[in-house]
Amino acid sequence: MDVAIIGGTGYGAVELIRFLHNHPHVQVTKIISHSNSGTDLSEVYPHLTEIIDLEMTPLNVDELAKEVELVFFATPSNVSKHYIPSLMDKGVRCIDLSGDFRLRDGEIYQTYYGEEMATQRYIDQAVYGLPEINKEKIKQASILANPGCYPTATTLGLLPVLENDLVDNSSIIIDAKTGTSGAGRGLSLNVHFSEMNENFKAYKLGVHKHIPEIEQLLTERAKEEIQVTFTPHIVPMTRGIMSTIYVDLKDKQSTDYLIDVYQNYYKNDPFVRVRRNGTIPSTREVYGSNYCDIGLYADERTGKLIIVSVIDNLVKGASGQAVQNMNIMCGWDETTGINQLPIYP
Amino acid sequence: MDVAIIGGTGYGAVELIRFLHNHPHVQVTKIISHSNSGTDLSEVYPHLTEIIDLEMTPLNVDELAKEVELVFFATPSNVSKHYIPSLMDKGVRCIDLSGDFRLRDGEIYQTYYGEEMATQRYIDQAVYGLPEINKEKIKQASILANPGCYPTATTLGLLPVLENDLVDNSSIIIDAKTGTSGAGRGLSLNVHFSEMNENFKAYKLGVHKHIPEIEQLLTERAKEEIQVTFTPHIVPMTRGIMSTIYVDLKDKQSTDYLIDVYQNYYKNDPFVRVRRNGTIPSTREVYGSNYCDIGLYADERTGKLIIVSVIDNLVKGASGQAVQNMNIMCGWDETTGINQLPIYP
Amino acid sequence: MDVAIIGGTGYGAVELIRFLHNHPHVQVTKIISHSNSGTDLSEVYPHLTEIIDLEMTPLNVDELAKEVELVFFATPSNVSKHYIPSLMDKGVRCIDLSGDFRLRDGEIYQTYYGEEMATQRYIDQAVYGLPEINKEKIKQASILANPGCYPTATTLGLLPVLENDLVDNSSIIIDAKTGTSGAGRGLSLNVHFSEMNENFKAYKLGVHKHIPEIEQLLTERAKEEIQVTFTPHIVPMTRGIMSTIYVDLKDKQSTDYLIDVYQNYYKNDPFVRVRRNGTIPSTREVYGSNYCDIGLYADERTGKLIIVSVIDNLVKGASGQAVQNMNIMCGWDETTGINQLPIYP
Amino acid sequence: MDVAIIGGTGYGAVELIRFLHNHPHVQVTKIISHSNSGTDLSEVYPHLTEIIDLEMTPLNVDELAKEVELVFFATPSNVSKHYIPSLMDKGVRCIDLSGDFRLRDGEIYQTYYGEEMATQRYIDQAVYGLPEINKEKIKQASILANPGCYPTATTLGLLPVLENDLVDNSSIIIDAKTGTSGAGRGLSLNVHFSEMNENFKAYKLGVHKHIPEIEQLLTERAKEEIQVTFTPHIVPMTRGIMSTIYVDLKDKQSTDYLIDVYQNYYKNDPFVRVRRNGTIPSTREVYGSNYCDIGLYADERTGKLIIVSVIDNLVKGASGQAVQNMNIMCGWDETTGINQLPIYP
Repeated sequence: MDVAIIGGTGYGAVELIRFLHNHPHVQVTKIISHSNSGTDLSEVYPHLTEIIDLEMTPLNVDELAKEVELVFFATPSNVSKHYIPSLMDKGVRCIDLSGDFRLRDGEIYQTYYGEEMATQRYIDQAVYGLPEINKEKIKQASILANPGCYPTATTLGLLPVLENDLVDNSSIIIDAKTGTSGAGRGLSLNVHFSEMNENFKAYKLGVHKHIPEIEQLLTERAKEEIQVTFTPHIVPMTRGIMSTIYVDLKDKQSTDYLIDVYQNYYKNDPFVRVRRNGTIPSTREVYGSNYCDIGLYADERTGKLIIVSVIDNLVKGASGQAVQNMNIMCGWDETTGINQLPIYP
Repeated sequence: MDVAIIGGTGYGAVELIRFLHNHPHVQVTKIISHSNSGTDLSEVYPHLTEIIDLEMTPLNVDELAKEVELVFFATPSNVSKHYIPSLMDKGVRCIDLSGDFRLRDGEIYQTYYGEEMATQRYIDQAVYGLPEINKEKIKQASILANPGCYPTATTLGLLPVLENDLVDNSSIIIDAKTGTSGAGRGLSLNVHFSEMNENFKAYKLGVHKHIPEIEQLLTERAKEEIQVTFTPHIVPMTRGIMSTIYVDLKDKQSTDYLIDVYQNYYKNDPFVRVRRNGTIPSTREVYGSNYCDIGLYADERTGKLIIVSVIDNLVKGASGQAVQNMNIMCGWDETTGINQLPIYP
Repeated sequence: MDVAIIGGTGYGAVELIRFLHNHPHVQVTKIISHSNSGTDLSEVYPHLTEIIDLEMTPLNVDELAKEVELVFFATPSNVSKHYIPSLMDKGVRCIDLSGDFRLRDGEIYQTYYGEEMATQRYIDQAVYGLPEINKEKIKQASILANPGCYPTATTLGLLPVLENDLVDNSSIIIDAKTGTSGAGRGLSLNVHFSEMNENFKAYKLGVHKHIPEIEQLLTERAKEEIQVTFTPHIVPMTRGIMSTIYVDLKDKQSTDYLIDVYQNYYKNDPFVRVRRNGTIPSTREVYGSNYCDIGLYADERTGKLIIVSVIDNLVKGASGQAVQNMNIMCGWDETTGINQLPIYP
Repeated sequence: MDVAIIGGTGYGAVELIRFLHNHPHVQVTKIISHSNSGTDLSEVYPHLTEIIDLEMTPLNVDELAKEVELVFFATPSNVSKHYIPSLMDKGVRCIDLSGDFRLRDGEIYQTYYGEEMATQRYIDQAVYGLPEINKEKIKQASILANPGCYPTATTLGLLPVLENDLVDNSSIIIDAKTGTSGAGRGLSLNVHFSEMNENFKAYKLGVHKHIPEIEQLLTERAKEEIQVTFTPHIVPMTRGIMSTIYVDLKDKQSTDYLIDVYQNYYKNDPFVRVRRNGTIPSTREVYGSNYCDIGLYADERTGKLIIVSVIDNLVKGASGQAVQNMNIMCGWDETTGINQLPIYP
C-alpha cells in the first residue's frame, strides 16, 4: 500500500518513517513538506543517508489522491483541517497526528487552539484513535484523530478506575513530565540546550491544549462531566512522558486488587503493560517502543491512588500509535511493524 | 572561628567547603572521614587541588572538642546521634545535616530510619533549622537539625497558605522531583549514568523518610494533624529540586492575591523569592545558590492552587542552609558567605 | 536455530536480545548468568516485561552443547577463554563479544588483560569478526572474536587510506570519545551520574586494552608494524563512539578524491556509509543502528587528513556486529534482524 | 568604580554580572542591549530577580563615556570595532570579549570574520589579555582583547613546551571539545536540545575562527611560523572546554620532568593548576571557576606528549578572565572577585 507523509521535516514524520520502513505491507512513496520541497529528505536528516532516497514535494491534493491510499499528517496545529476534508471526499483515508480533529466542541477548540475548528461534519466523521478503547470504530475510520502524547499516557492510566467507578471523579490531579522532543524541531529558548540542560521546568500551567482533550475523553467514558488539574513539566531528556496521577479512592483498596483491575482491563491490549506490585515504570523502560507501562500504588495513609503511566512520546504518544491505528484500519495485526523492543540502556 | 566537618567525602561536606572557604569569619581546620582518614581531601576531590590542603583524620570526640567551636555533620543517617550528645556536653555546637535530630517521635523515627532515635533529652534540645520560621530559636541552638532537601522546598511552598488558613489541610499533594546528587556519592544502579541518563523515574512511593519530617512541621504550624501524599522522582540532572504542590483553596482566590500573601510572609527573608504572576521558576534559576524560588497559579476551573517551589538541593536543601543557620547561631548577617548568584546557564 | 547468551545481566546481552527477538531464523532459548541464575530476566530488566519470559540459569557446558547450536559470550574479560574451547570441541559455534580471543600474542595479552591468554591452538582458530574485511573467514569460523567498540570505529576509519598506501603509517593519532554504556552496568564512581553528568573526561591514557587490538589489525593489513597514539574520553551520553583520527597524507589529496577512495572501498558493505563532502557524521545519526558513518576532511594547510568515524558502541561496536557475524556464519543475509533505522532524535 | 556591560542578554554578560556583583571595587551601573533596551534584566534572566535591578538601555557612546570608567563588550563579532575607538579616544578603557581586536592581520581577519578588521591604529593599541604571559602590558592597556575560549585552554596547554623548545612545532594537533554555552544564547538547530542531547558532534573542521588566534600567539611566542590542526567538537553539556593536544617531543622526556617544566612555568599564576603525574583533569573539576587545569602524559611508545587542558569556557574562557584582566589593569589583586571554588558536583 502506498502512503504519504505530510510534514516531512518534523520529528513525527521522521519517526513514522522509522516504523514504516520495515513495515511489510506499506511503502512511503511521498514525503510532503512546504518549507523544504525540492530537498532530499536525507539532507535534512542525514541519519537517513542511503536508506531513504526521496525528495520532498509540495502538497497537491488532487495528485496526492491519485497516488496514495492513505495520508499521515504530521503537521502543526491548524494545518490538516484545511486538507483532510477534500482528501476524505476523494476517498483517501487520513491519519492526523495533530490536534485538528480531536475535539468536538468548536468553542473549546477556539479557546485552546486559537482558531476556528474544522467543519463540524468532518469532525463528526473523525474517530479518536486510542486503540485500547476504540478498536471497532477505528476499523471504519476515514479520518483518524491520533491522540496527543499527554492524553495517551494519562487516559490509559485513568480509564480502568474510572470505568470501574472506583474513584472520586472530581479529584483528578495529573502531574505530567515530558522530554523535549514533544516541543518538536522548531527552535525556541525553552528547549535551547544551554537553557534546558541540567534544568527542570513547569510550563503552561492551566492552559495546555491537552487539557480539553483529556477531559473530553474522560467525560465520555465516565458519563459525567470531568475536570482535571493538569501541570506539564519538561525534563532534560529527549524522549519519554510520565504522567503521575493522583485520585481519591472511593473505598479502601489494596494495590494488588487495583493491579488486577488494570490487568483485566488491558488483557487484550498488546501495548499496555501493567506492572506487578512494587515496580514503578521509568520512562527509559519504554524508550523507542510503542508500550505504555503503568505502575500503581494505593497509599493507605491518605486514601489516594497514585498511578504512574509512561510512554515514549514520539511512539505510543505519536507515530507508533499512528501506525497501530493504520494497522487496525487496514485489518492487519495491530503490532505489525511496531513490535520493536524498548532500547535499553 | 575554627570549625570541623565530619563526613568529608560526601557531597554535603564538599559543598560546605565551597561556601566556608570564602566565609570571612570561619575557617575549616578539620575534615573528618572514617573511610578516608589519612588521605588528602584533594586526592578524593581533585577540584580542590592547591585550594584545600587538609588531610582527613578519624573522629576523636575529646580532641575535637578542644580544637573547634562548631561541628558540621554531613554524615549518613544514624551516625551523628552517636556523637552529637557528647560534643554538646562538652560545649561544642553541632549542625547536623542528616536526619538524626529532625523528628521528635521515636516510633516514627524507627519506622522511617530503621533504628532507634537519639536520646530524647538531646532531641528536645535540637532546633529545626528552617530560618524562615525559627530564627529566634536558632540563635540559641546547641544542636541544630538542618532540614532535609524535600522538606525545605515543600514547607517553604506551603507555610504561607497554611498559616493563613487559606487551604483545606487534608488536600495536600506533593509531586517532588530531584537531581541525582541528593542520592549522594554512594554507588547504586539507580544513579548509574547509563541507567539514569535520558530517563525519569518515580521512587520510594509512600515510604520516603522526608514524609514524616514534612508532616511534623506542617502539623506544628497548622496546629492540626496533617498528612500529605508525597511522590519523589529523579530527574536526569545533578542539582535541583522542584516541589509541585497541589492544594484545595477554601475560597476562590486570585493568583495575584496569593502572591501578595506569600511576598508578605517572606518579606524579611533574603533567600525566598516569590515570583510575580505569570512566571514559574525552573530549577536552573537557583542553581548553586541559596535561594528558594516560589511560583503560584490558582486554577480557577478546579479551585486548586498549584505551588511550584525550587531550590538547589545541595545548597538551600543542605549545605547553604547549614551555613545560613551557622550565621544566625553566631550572630552574623544571615547571608554571609552564601550570597553568590545562581550560576546561569 | 536455538542460541544461548552468556552474561545475561550486561548491556551486551540485553542488546543481543533486542536484535534477536525479531530475527526470523533464531530464537534465544537460554540466558546464562552466574550472578543472577534463578531470576527472571525481566526482573533485572523490567523493560522486557511480557516480552521475554526466561529464567536465567547457571552455565553447564555439557548441557548447553546439547541444547543450542551457537553461543554468544557477552561476558567480562578473562571469562570466555575458560569455556569456549570445550564448547568448540563439542561442535558449538561461539561468538565472543569480549576480548579473550582477539589478540594473537600472549605476552601483549598478558600486559593489557592482566592474565594469561587462552590456549594458542584455540586462538589460532579464532576469526576476527570485522565483516568489512573478513567475510570469507567469518563464514567458516567456529570461534568468532567480535571486535571491540573503539577498534571497530577506528579501523573502519583507517583501512581505506592504509590499504591504498595514502598516508604515513607512523603518524596515526586517534582521539576517541565514548558514551558511558561502554563501561557496562558495573558500578563505578567514574560513571556515577552526579560525577559524569555535565562532565567530560579523558581516561586510561596510553594503557587502554584496545590499543594492541587496533595495532594488530592495522599492522596485518598494512603489512608493516604500526603503532598508534590513542586517547579515549567519556562523553556525558549513554551510547555512541566517535573516533577523530589524524594522519599525514603522503601527497596532497582533495577531500573529494579521498571520499571516492572510501566509497569504493566500502561499496559492498551495507553498514558503512561514507558521507559526502561537507557533512561530518554525529553519533546521534547512527544511534541504535548497526551503521558506521565516516566523514572526511583533508586539511590543505597542514597536509593532514581528519577522519571522523561514528558508531553506536552497543550495536556496530558490540551486539549488532555480533548478529551480523552470526548471519554471515550461517549463510543468511548480512543485514537480517539488524536493519533497523537509527533512532532520531 | 562604575562599569558598563554591552551585550546584556548574552551569556558573557550574565556571567560578568555574577562575578562583578560580589566584586569589592566595582559596580555595574549600566547594562546596554540593542535588542532589549527598555526591559529589566531580570525579565530576560529571571534568576537575577531581586538581585539586579537594572533596566537595559541603548548604547550612547557620549553619555557612556561620562558615566563609567570601563566598559565590557560581550557582543557578537564585528560589533565592538565600531564603538571601542571612540570610547578609547574619550578615555574609557575597554575590555572586549569578542574577537574584534585579537588578530593583527587584516587579511586573515577578513577571511575568518567575513568583514574588515578595525582600524589598524586601534588594533596596534590592543593588548591580548592572556594574563599568564602578558601581565605587564595588560596593566597599561586601554583596549584589552580578551582571548577566545579555545585559544585560552589551548595556548596555556602549549606554551611551556613551546617556549622551552621541547617539541617539534610543526606537529601540533588540537582535538578540542566544548559545552554548548560557547555557542551563546542564539537559537540554532545545532544546539537545539533534542538534537544535541545524547549526541556528540565535530564541527567547522579547518575553518574555525580560533585557528588564526591560536597560531598568531604561538608564532609570536615560539618566534617561528606555526600552523596547527584544530578540530572542535560539541559535548552534550553546558559548560566546559577540554583541549587534548598532541605534539612530538624532540627528545624522550618523562612525564615527571615535563610536569616540573609546567609547574615552574606557571609558578606565579594563581589560576593555572598543573596536575601531578597520574591525574588528568576533567571539565567538571573547573566548573564555574577561573582555573585552567593541565594534565600531561608522555607516551614513551610513540614519542608523543599528550596535553589535556580544561577550563570553564564562560569563566577562564570569557568573563572570569575578563575580570582577571580588569583587576590587573586597575592594580588590584588578580584574583579579586573570581576566587570562587569550582562547583562540584
